[in-house]
Amino acid sequence: MTAFSFELIKEDAQCAARAGIIHTPHGDIPTPVFAPVGTQAAVKTMTPRDLRALGATLILSNTYHLYLRPGAELIAQLGGLHRFMGWEGPILTDSGGYQIFSLQTLRRVRDDGVTFRSHVDGSTHFFTPEKVITIQEQLGADIIMPLDECATPHDYTYNVQALARTHRWAERCLAVKRRTDQALYGIVQGGIFQDLRVQSAQFLRALDLPGYAIGGLSVGETKAEMHQVLEWLHLELPRDRPRYLMGVGSPDDLFECVARGVDQFDCVLPTRMARNGAVLTHCGRLNLRNARYAADPNPIEEDCTCYACQTFSRAYLRHLIMADEITGLYLTTLHNLHFVLNLMRRIRQSILEGTFMEFKREFLSHYRIAEDGQGIASEELKDEANDSRYESRKATICR
Amino acid sequence: MTAFSFELIKEDAQCAARAGIIHTPHGDIPTPVFAPVGTQAAVKTMTPRDLRALGATLILSNTYHLYLRPGAELIAQLGGLHRFMGWEGPILTDSGGYQIFSLQTLRRVRDDGVTFRSHVDGSTHFFTPEKVITIQEQLGADIIMPLDECATPHDYTYNVQALARTHRWAERCLAVKRRTDQALYGIVQGGIFQDLRVQSAQFLRALDLPGYAIGGLSVGETKAEMHQVLEWLHLELPRDRPRYLMGVGSPDDLFECVARGVDQFDCVLPTRMARNGAVLTHCGRLNLRNARYAADPNPIEEDCTCYACQTFSRAYLRHLIMADEITGLYLTTLHNLHFVLNLMRRIRQSILEGTFMEFKREFLSHYRIAEDGQGIASEELKDEANDSRYESRKATICR
Repeated sequence: MTAFSFELIKEDAQCAARAGIIHTPHGDIPTPVFAPVGTQAAVKTMTPRDLRALGATLILSNTYHLYLRPGAELIAQLGGLHRFMGWEGPILTDSGGYQIFSLQTLRRVRDDGVTFRSHVDGSTHFFTPEKVITIQEQLGADIIMPLDECATPHDYTYNVQALARTHRWAERCLAVKRRTDQALYGIVQGGIFQDLRVQSAQFLRALDLPGYAIGGLSVGETKAEMHQVLEWLHLELPRDRPRYLMGVGSPDDLFECVARGVDQFDCVLPTRMARNGAVLTHCGRLNLRNARYAADPNPIEEDCTCYACQTFSRAYLRHLIMADEITGLYLTTLHNLHFVLNLMRRIRQSILEGTFMEFKREFLSHYRIAEDGQGIASEELKDEANDSRYESRKATICR
Repeated sequence: MTAFSFELIKEDAQCAARAGIIHTPHGDIPTPVFAPVGTQAAVKTMTPRDLRALGATLILSNTYHLYLRPGAELIAQLGGLHRFMGWEGPILTDSGGYQIFSLQTLRRVRDDGVTFRSHVDGSTHFFTPEKVITIQEQLGADIIMPLDECATPHDYTYNVQALARTHRWAERCLAVKRRTDQALYGIVQGGIFQDLRVQSAQFLRALDLPGYAIGGLSVGETKAEMHQVLEWLHLELPRDRPRYLMGVGSPDDLFECVARGVDQFDCVLPTRMARNGAVLTHCGRLNLRNARYAADPNPIEEDCTCYACQTFSRAYLRHLIMADEITGLYLTTLHNLHFVLNLMRRIRQSILEGTFMEFKREFLSHYRIAEDGQGIASEELKDEANDSRYESRKATICR
C-alpha cells in the first residue's frame, strides 16, 4: 500500500498557484483538486460510476453524519467506507467539528471534548479528539481530520480560546492515531486575525503533518478577508504539503484561492445549487426555474460535453425541475459537477503550461457572480443535512 | 418511416401466451413487453441512457400530465416528445382518461367530453375525444390512446353507460386522427361483466384498430376476476393485433396475464415500490427499510447483473434509504426495472422455446407475493402524480 505523499510539480511564476499530485493508498489526486461532497456516504443523486465518469479523484464524507447513521462500527464491519459506498478512489472524512459547532444551541464544549445532540433523533453524544480519530480509523478514509473548534470569524476573544483548544486537540489526535495508511491533516484556525492565523500555522507546522487544512473561512467573513488570510498562510505553511481550503468551491473562489496557493477544495455548492435548479455556466449561474427558459431549446451550455448538455434542452430540464422529477436533480447535479471538475482540470493544465493568470483573467471577465440574486449564502454551504432551512427547501424540491 | 404493425411469431401450445414484435416508426418492440412509466416525460430517477442500458423498448407517458405541464404545444414546438425527453425509442401516451376518472370529485362527464380540475393549479379544463387526439398528435408518441371512461369494476349500470360512451368516444377519436405514423389503440372496458367485455371487444374489433388495450382492470377487482376477463377477451380479440393490459405489472401478474394472451404491459409498480425502499427478488418483495438488512453485506440478489447488485450491499442501500439519499431511490429503481425487464425477456425467450409454462411454474413456486405486508394496493398503482396519499409519502421519502 502506497504511503501518503505530496509531489509538487509546478509553481506559477506570477502568483502562488501550484500544481502537484497527492499520492494516497487509493490512488493519485492531481492538484489543485475539487472534492464533491458525499456527506452521508453518497454524493447526492450520484453513483460512484457517475463520479468516475466525471473524473472525480477525491470524495469527501463526514464523520459526524456517518457516526450517527449508519454508525462507524457497522461501516468497519462491512469492510470500511470505500467498500461500503462502492468508491475505490481516495476519500477524505471531515471530523464533524464544523457540523457540531454549527448546531448552535445543541452543544457544550469543554477542554476534554464536546457534547452535542444528534440532528437525527435528538440523542446526546460526546466527541473527544481521541474518539474522532477512532471513528475515522473505523471508516478508513485516506485523509482524516482532527476535531477542531470553528469560531465566528470576527470574534477575537472567542478565536483565541478556540484556537488554543484546536491546537491541544490536534496534538491529542496525532498522539492516538494508529493507522499508517491514513494521513491526518492539521486544521489552521484563527478567524480573520493575522497573529492567530500565523500562530496556528506555526504551531501545526511544528507537528509535521502530511497536509494542512484551512478552516473557519467561508463562514461569514468577506471575500477580501478570506483572500487576506490565504495570503498570510501562503507564507507560513510548508511548501511541500498540500493545502486544503475547507468548504469553498464556487468557480470564482477556485481561481482566487488557487492563485493564493490552495491545492485542495470541497464544497456542496455545485450539488446543492443543482437541487435548487441552479446551474453553472461560463457566464455565471443560471436558474432553470426562471420562466425565461420554459421554451428554450438550447442546452445549459452549448459547448459542454456533459450528458445533460449533450442530450437535453433547458426547456426539458426546467420542466423536470418544475414537475419535481428526481431525474432533473440528477441531471443538474451531473452538469454542475462536470463544470467544476472540468474547470479544475483546466486550471491545473494552465498552471502546468504557465498560463494560469491569463486563464483566470479570461474566465473571470465572462463569469457573472450570482446572476439572478438566488445565490446561496456562503454560510449555508458547509453542511448538507444539518441545516433546517435547507431541509424545508429540500422537501419542497422533492415533493 | 416504418408503419406500425404487429408480427406474431410464436403461440404457446399449452396456454394463450404469445411472442411477437410490434414494429413502430421508432423501432421494434419484442413482445411480450413491459413499459416503464414516465408519467411526466421522465421515468422517475432514470435517464434515457439508463433505460437503454436496461433494455427498455417502450416507455409510457401521460397525455393528461403533459397537457397540464409543460403543455403539448410547447413539446410540439421543441420537436415532439421523443426529442423533448431524449428517448428515441418507441413511446406510448395514455389518453389521460384514467387520471381524470380517478380525480373523483374533480370531474363532470357529459357525452361530449369531461370537465376536470388540474391537480397542479386547480384550473378547469375540458377534454373531448377530439382534443385528446389533437394533444397526442402534438406529442407524437408511436402508440396513442382514445379518451375512455373507466368505471368501477362491479357496478353494472355504471359500466353499461360508461361503455357506450367509451365506444362513441373511440369512434370520434378515430374519425379525427390525422397522423399516419401513430397507432391508435382501442380500449376495451366493461368491468367484470362478460356480456359487456364481449360487446366491447366486438365493437372495437369492428373498428379494425392496430392494437387493443384492456382497461378497467387492476382497479379493485380480484385477481381471479381479472384473469376471467382476460380469458373471455382472448377469445374475442383479433389474434393478429397486440393486446395491452393497462396498469398491470407485478412479476406474478406478468406470468398470469401473459399466459392469458397479453402482449403489452405498463405499471408504476417497480418504480414506485423502489421509492418506498421495496425491491423485487425471485423470492418476492423485500423492504430495505426493515432493520434486518442493516448489516447485511449481500446484494439485493446474488445473481443479479444490475449495477446496484454488482456494486452495493443491502446494508448500504438501506442506509441510503433511511438517510433519504436520492441515490438510494435511483439504485432501487434501477434494480426493480432491471428485474422486471429481464424477467420479461426471459418470459419471451421461454415462449419462443416452448418452455413458458415450465418457467412460470418454477418462478411462481419461489416467488412470495407481498412478503412483508407492505405491498402497494393495486388501485394505487395506476398513476404517479395524481395521488395525494402518494404525495405525502413521497415527501417523507425525499426529506
